[in-house]
Amino acid sequence: MLGRVNHIAIAVPDLHSAAESYRSTLGASVTEPQALPEHGVTVVFVTLANTKVELLEPLGEGSPIAAFLAKNPSGGMHHICYEVENILSARDALRAAGARVLGDGEPKIGAHGKPVLFLHPKDFQGTLIELEEV
Amino acid sequence: MLGRVNHIAIAVPDLHSAAESYRSTLGASVTEPQALPEHGVTVVFVTLANTKVELLEPLGEGSPIAAFLAKNPSGGMHHICYEVENILSARDALRAAGARVLGDGEPKIGAHGKPVLFLHPKDFQGTLIELEEV
Repeated sequence: MLGRVNHIAIAVPDLHSAAESYRSTLGASVTEPQALPEHGVTVVFVTLANTKVELLEPLGEGSPIAAFLAKNPSGGMHHICYEVENILSARDALRAAGARVLGDGEPKIGAHGKPVLFLHPKDFQGTLIELEEV
Repeated sequence: MLGRVNHIAIAVPDLHSAAESYRSTLGASVTEPQALPEHGVTVVFVTLANTKVELLEPLGEGSPIAAFLAKNPSGGMHHICYEVENILSARDALRAAGARVLGDGEPKIGAHGKPVLFLHPKDFQGTLIELEEV
């Protein structure tokens, strides 16, 4: 079911300084910040040879990463996104195997304009897993 | 400086059940457990199309992931490993930029038989970064 690792997401308290440390200190290629108000985050992509890292800063009220940053004020790894071919059949197979899909189980359009779902971290060793249909 | 994402490491309290959830529930290809007593971990690799996930279970006394699991008993994302061409020049450039290299700064031979170093998570938004020379 799992395809490529689409991205690894890192929640950060200060996107400018985080992007700067990936660009200047680690010598990586980093995009300009992109505000995604409908997702409650501003995002910078660190482009790597085989995948990407998403740096996420909260945007607006009720950001989905606000609680995580309250618990981890310096930031930290937030989730891993895997690509799947068919998100509805992936969801149904996961539910049949006893895994919990977050929210109402209906895919939302994610930050890349593709349908996404999140799986409960308690079912996967404390790791929040995002599935994205590609 | 940063090349491919070599792996994303997830610390888990029970390697058997973690491997089983990646194999059966998520339908991924999973290797047999490999004990690495010199690294204080037993490891299973989840092989993905573009990178891999390393599931790590503590092995023996003083495992380097024991403290992490004490704080995160269900497990969680532990570090990201990036490939670099030359680990000594990477280390020197990182130090010159003010980043802290863990331990004595001399590369150790990592779980893949290649020289590795770890960078201080406080310098990188709470993310533990491993560099591996390939």
